[in-house]
Amino acid sequence: MARIVMKFGGTSMAGSERIRAVAVRIKREVDAGHQVAVVVSAMAGTTDQLVGYCREASPLADPAEYDVVVAAGEQITSGLLAITLQSLGVSARSWLGWQLPIRTTAAHSVARIEDVGTAAILDSMAAGAVAVVPGFQGLTADGRLTTLGRGGSDTSAVALAAALKADRCDIYTDVDGVYTTDPRIVPRARKLQRITYEEMLELASVGAKVLQTRSVELAMKEKVVVQVLSSFSDAPGTLVVDEDDEMERELIVGVVADRNEAKVTLVRVPDKPGVVAGIFGPLADANINVDMIVQNIAKDEGTTDVTFTVPRSQLPASIDVLEKAQGAIGFAQLLHDDTVVKISVVGVGMKSHAGVAATMFRALASRGINIQAITTSEIKVSVLIPQDYVELAVRVLHTAYGLDGPIGTDAETDI
Amino acid sequence: MARIVMKFGGTSMAGSERIRAVAVRIKREVDAGHQVAVVVSAMAGTTDQLVGYCREASPLADPAEYDVVVAAGEQITSGLLAITLQSLGVSARSWLGWQLPIRTTAAHSVARIEDVGTAAILDSMAAGAVAVVPGFQGLTADGRLTTLGRGGSDTSAVALAAALKADRCDIYTDVDGVYTTDPRIVPRARKLQRITYEEMLELASVGAKVLQTRSVELAMKEKVVVQVLSSFSDAPGTLVVDEDDEMERELIVGVVADRNEAKVTLVRVPDKPGVVAGIFGPLADANINVDMIVQNIAKDEGTTDVTFTVPRSQLPASIDVLEKAQGAIGFAQLLHDDTVVKISVVGVGMKSHAGVAATMFRALASRGINIQAITTSEIKVSVLIPQDYVELAVRVLHTAYGLDGPIGTDAETDI
Repeated sequence: MARIVMKFGGTSMAGSERIRAVAVRIKREVDAGHQVAVVVSAMAGTTDQLVGYCREASPLADPAEYDVVVAAGEQITSGLLAITLQSLGVSARSWLGWQLPIRTTAAHSVARIEDVGTAAILDSMAAGAVAVVPGFQGLTADGRLTTLGRGGSDTSAVALAAALKADRCDIYTDVDGVYTTDPRIVPRARKLQRITYEEMLELASVGAKVLQTRSVELAMKEKVVVQVLSSFSDAPGTLVVDEDDEMERELIVGVVADRNEAKVTLVRVPDKPGVVAGIFGPLADANINVDMIVQNIAKDEGTTDVTFTVPRSQLPASIDVLEKAQGAIGFAQLLHDDTVVKISVVGVGMKSHAGVAATMFRALASRGINIQAITTSEIKVSVLIPQDYVELAVRVLHTAYGLDGPIGTDAETDI
Repeated sequence: MARIVMKFGGTSMAGSERIRAVAVRIKREVDAGHQVAVVVSAMAGTTDQLVGYCREASPLADPAEYDVVVAAGEQITSGLLAITLQSLGVSARSWLGWQLPIRTTAAHSVARIEDVGTAAILDSMAAGAVAVVPGFQGLTADGRLTTLGRGGSDTSAVALAAALKADRCDIYTDVDGVYTTDPRIVPRARKLQRITYEEMLELASVGAKVLQTRSVELAMKEKVVVQVLSSFSDAPGTLVVDEDDEMERELIVGVVADRNEAKVTLVRVPDKPGVVAGIFGPLADANINVDMIVQNIAKDEGTTDVTFTVPRSQLPASIDVLEKAQGAIGFAQLLHDDTVVKISVVGVGMKSHAGVAATMFRALASRGINIQAITTSEIKVSVLIPQDYVELAVRVLHTAYGLDGPIGTDAETDI
């Protein structure tokens, strides 16, 4: 007998028929003798509708009252799933965020979970009842409702799994696992059987939207075994686990393209101490996250060119900030380009292998793809290239690192 | 400075524009220096939608989980109204049923309010904040959500007004007061300025759907001054108050038609002790409410005919129950008629005046309307007539008791 947390997203909860399919899936785990707690999202569309009501009421809605409104979505699906489980003969009851309670910070609409009360729910689960818990919501120390921010239900599930010391946290979603790259670009993409927390974090941070980043951080910290799998098929999913020395490791587990970057170049910046602070200080003050930074070596005349990327949506604001600071920074010209894309390769294997970056540069050069900027972390190499080459670059790298499987999604690999 | 509870129904809360109109109305009371608590219903249609989801999940939904689902509707409007009030510069916050708490019995989906916690809300109101409270919902002693049954928000408002010792409980609805009869039938119907609790109860029990019966009972018990008025106009409403000797009283305050009755006649029932129990015992066991009962005098052959009414929706069930008991009861024939209507005249004035019933019978006889059954209470006389005559009977009685005002809804009378 295992103790399992199952989490179902908004697409899985959208309407009575899908809720019934979810209940059937839960019943299977109960019939196998497991203790089950379930975390649910609101029906797809409901949260958007409730957020829309709040905006109509006031563009600057009080976040505490916003939370009262939007938390209702998960409350509804919790009750409906408990009813549906009972109709299948499965003992079940809902436990709202304030009933457990799920204690959070008081940062309304972006609260963080601090503690999950489990005494009552553990008794109920031990007595054979499935516990149905709304994701996304919690309670402040002074008794008000909070929400965790969009996508927060993943984090609710991992936090509950940690508090319950669950054997596994199964995240059911509308994809059936984590792939080596986007199967729409590379038909030979393979579903991964396993991936480490660090790899999942790097993939999430460069744009793979399978799990919310914070939920992966929490899983890593609390050593919660997370499984990503589909509500709509019975295929095995991808396990997100701690790094394990005994695993046969490949160098690279994924190739990801991030289309949300824009490039800015400041031409002929004086090459003197403090100039970098003069550029990035004003951007930070405007809450603009700068990502890749390349500073060329100084030119003869004592100036240098500085290139960096910002989120594409923040490019106009960035230009505005920099033009206002032109006098203080002293650059000659501002160039910008929002037709770039960041390609990253991720894998904990690269910690112990040289040559990962070299393979990347060679592969891209062989197809005439020009690299505009480079950044690296311990388990990731990212390059900026013209967006016209994005599909080609992803396919070339997928092949270069030996990730290609047979065409189709059936093949899996244990990395 | 007064302390006021204002209650707004689902039609008044249906959408952002109407919620804004409600907020403007509340702001007027706040600007006048009053302390205000507001009780809100769910948006019109929301509760039906949520109930529909529960039925789809299971025809026999667990009432405790049903309550979790449907209570979400009032939670949403509470948060939205608080946000809208704030956008008008009015300090406001929501207090959910479990936050006050509003303690109820554990009879899920038909719970009764036992106690309303007011410590926190009184502090908040004293500090100048409007308290927004969802109607219809409460909390059991063991911490689960409950609802009060359809229309329960009126009761929530009266219970809150009693707990807050409010000076007045204003019930805003889609009619602008209590009328002497249905203005769609009698254009000369007058809006009443005042009515007693007892009269309001009798009117409610015979089919005038302005206030939920239980809310009137509670207001009478707790001596809460209730005002019924329209969300959509500024016309003064109707005050529901304690009987006051100094009021100039008219005999009759209202004429009401109830189309939900069906007549059953058992022909040639043996006229012996215990036969009435033999008829009404099985009906009571089947939860069928019998209303008007007429037992004719015994005929020569030692039998009698017994006529009574049941709710029209329960007529098939009643026939079924009685036919199964035919052997035990011993009647010769069962006749039924669902084309009858009950007409009632109500007024506390009739306590001290004879002749009210005689006026009724004379007026109906003068137009050839046959009376099939009669019941009376201390402040009500009801007759059963063929439904074809309903409009004629209401008009004739409205005139006979001197209730006619000028045509239109502007005229009011202080009874």
